Amino acid sequence: MATTLSYTHLFSFTEAVFKSIGCSDEDATLATETLLAADLRGIDSHGVARLIGYVRLWEAGRINPTPRVGVTYETPSTAVVDGDGGLGLVVGPKAMEVAIEKARQVGTGWVSVKNSNHFGIAGYHAMKALAYDMMGIAMTNASPLVAPTYSLERLLGTNPIAVAVPAGDQPDFVLDMATTTAANGKLEIAQRKNTPIPEGWAQNADGTGSTDPNAVKNGGALLPLGGATGSHKGYGLGAVVDIFSAVLSGANYGPWVPPFVAFLQPSANPVGEGLGHFFGAMRVDAFRPAAEFKAHMDNWITTFRNARAVEGQHVLIPGDPEREMSGKRLIEGIPLLDPVIKDLETVGAKFGVKL
Amino acid sequence: MATTLSYTHLFSFTEAVFKSIGCSDEDATLATETLLAADLRGIDSHGVARLIGYVRLWEAGRINPTPRVGVTYETPSTAVVDGDGGLGLVVGPKAMEVAIEKARQVGTGWVSVKNSNHFGIAGYHAMKALAYDMMGIAMTNASPLVAPTYSLERLLGTNPIAVAVPAGDQPDFVLDMATTTAANGKLEIAQRKNTPIPEGWAQNADGTGSTDPNAVKNGGALLPLGGATGSHKGYGLGAVVDIFSAVLSGANYGPWVPPFVAFLQPSANPVGEGLGHFFGAMRVDAFRPAAEFKAHMDNWITTFRNARAVEGQHVLIPGDPEREMSGKRLIEGIPLLDPVIKDLETVGAKFGVKL
Repeated sequence: MATTLSYTHLFSFTEAVFKSIGCSDEDATLATETLLAADLRGIDSHGVARLIGYVRLWEAGRINPTPRVGVTYETPSTAVVDGDGGLGLVVGPKAMEVAIEKARQVGTGWVSVKNSNHFGIAGYHAMKALAYDMMGIAMTNASPLVAPTYSLERLLGTNPIAVAVPAGDQPDFVLDMATTTAANGKLEIAQRKNTPIPEGWAQNADGTGSTDPNAVKNGGALLPLGGATGSHKGYGLGAVVDIFSAVLSGANYGPWVPPFVAFLQPSANPVGEGLGHFFGAMRVDAFRPAAEFKAHMDNWITTFRNARAVEGQHVLIPGDPEREMSGKRLIEGIPLLDPVIKDLETVGAKFGVKL
Repeated sequence: MATTLSYTHLFSFTEAVFKSIGCSDEDATLATETLLAADLRGIDSHGVARLIGYVRLWEAGRINPTPRVGVTYETPSTAVVDGDGGLGLVVGPKAMEVAIEKARQVGTGWVSVKNSNHFGIAGYHAMKALAYDMMGIAMTNASPLVAPTYSLERLLGTNPIAVAVPAGDQPDFVLDMATTTAANGKLEIAQRKNTPIPEGWAQNADGTGSTDPNAVKNGGALLPLGGATGSHKGYGLGAVVDIFSAVLSGANYGPWVPPFVAFLQPSANPVGEGLGHFFGAMRVDAFRPAAEFKAHMDNWITTFRNARAVEGQHVLIPGDPEREMSGKRLIEGIPLLDPVIKDLETVGAKFGVKL
């Protein structure tokens, strides 16, 4: 069963919760906008369903609600941002602003972030660049759930990569993908339904391929993109995300990335501070006049969209499904499953905020 | 059957061929070094086996042996390089030098290239940055052989992405991957052996999955990374490579990318000039002191390499197999299949160069 709440209703509630844990008005608004971007775009696993998780991390003293986010190291086109243990939902947008400002100055800007927490969906951060006629790039490392090719140990997160590219008359191109075959949220759905998962999504504790939706829970691991026949590519991409996000910034990497769930303790011997992100902004007109670029981008998009397709299907442009979902949910509201509603009521009761 | 030739022997021969088509001494050396990097690293499909292909393109008037490669547009951290129709084997390294010089100045450098040709293996170009304590990135678009998810048309190339990261005591990290499940070269091997190909590599002309090694030849297409269950991710990555390499520079993109084989004509209505590449260089010390970065990179590498693994296997670091192969082939020589030897003899005879 699901209850549908309007975006504005959910926004007010979530904002009030972030204020209750001590966020400034400005940060609470920013965190809410970032978090609910996931719900709007249909990536329900990364949206308000995680609000209770963020609150529990704060209760465990692992989120600083009043971080002093700042640049600690820089060149004209690069910076390292220290998130001061803040919400990734707040640290992320502030770091992306630094990348955009650098791009304004010298054509591109590249920011690696340490001492942060989970930042919602990568696509939201990459899309920030679009308003400035820039391409946006966003990555983050995440709790270790993924086994590199041949590994029995979980050493990487689902480590997403997002790339946003502005177009002219056509809607923007927005790629936002985990570097695993399937996101953990899809396993959770299969667990609830008790249905087997496809080959290539996960492995058992002994490294054999699994169709058991509980495989990861039982000591197995998610598989990198490419699954059974080519997981070395997904492993390589996930590794690049980890290195750019954390080895470059001084955050924790690999198995040391702090878990999102508050009941698991972070490593007692961390190799860095918090978790890491990586952001990029490239001005389109640092390469060619923006109008020229956009005309060709429109041509690229319409060529792909209008390609001959398999019966009953059509070729999508990355970002199409999420944009359509966003338009729909802004009007019709956001459906929330009963367990999510229950979690939100629990959080609301804690702070005297009514859902 | 195979004949083994020493690297230096093959180098002299290849260099003489490039001089014979009109390359300057300097460009012939550069082109040879770039091309043979593929043979050394064990990526036989992209090495000297393609020399005859480059010569045929030159005969068809589609390669300029004396290009004036230059920057046509720039900001402090970006440039567009015009390859003037030259060999990608020459244009690529020159464009990467521009990226490295920009990185020296402002921390990072990003170069999009138009009017070029095939550039060999992406990994070679990315690795150029390592000597300067920089991370290197290289991408290229390529002849359309790949169908986006649901498409019956081939709109993308195998569009590789390479990322090279320097380490300290450990060998460098070098990811070099096509954004398809399998490279076309693997299909060619299966064709010769007349063995079926795994699910997820290719589709038939009607869009159904195929295990026929001749599927692509017969109007089918290669599948993006992710194959049967997640090709939208590989499609998205291949699309980003196409956009960064060509829409950004003014090269041909999508179905307009000129074919490598001389018997197929380029589009009569191109949307840009030649094919496109994209290069990046990021100074490690634009983010943190290089020694610090390298110490953590060594820790990253040893952690992954020493992870508990599936019986009889171990976890590899991207670049391990190619580096080992390179060491071996420098000493033992490069094995070449009989059809390749025959092609080289044909090319040699044309110019009076003895193999």
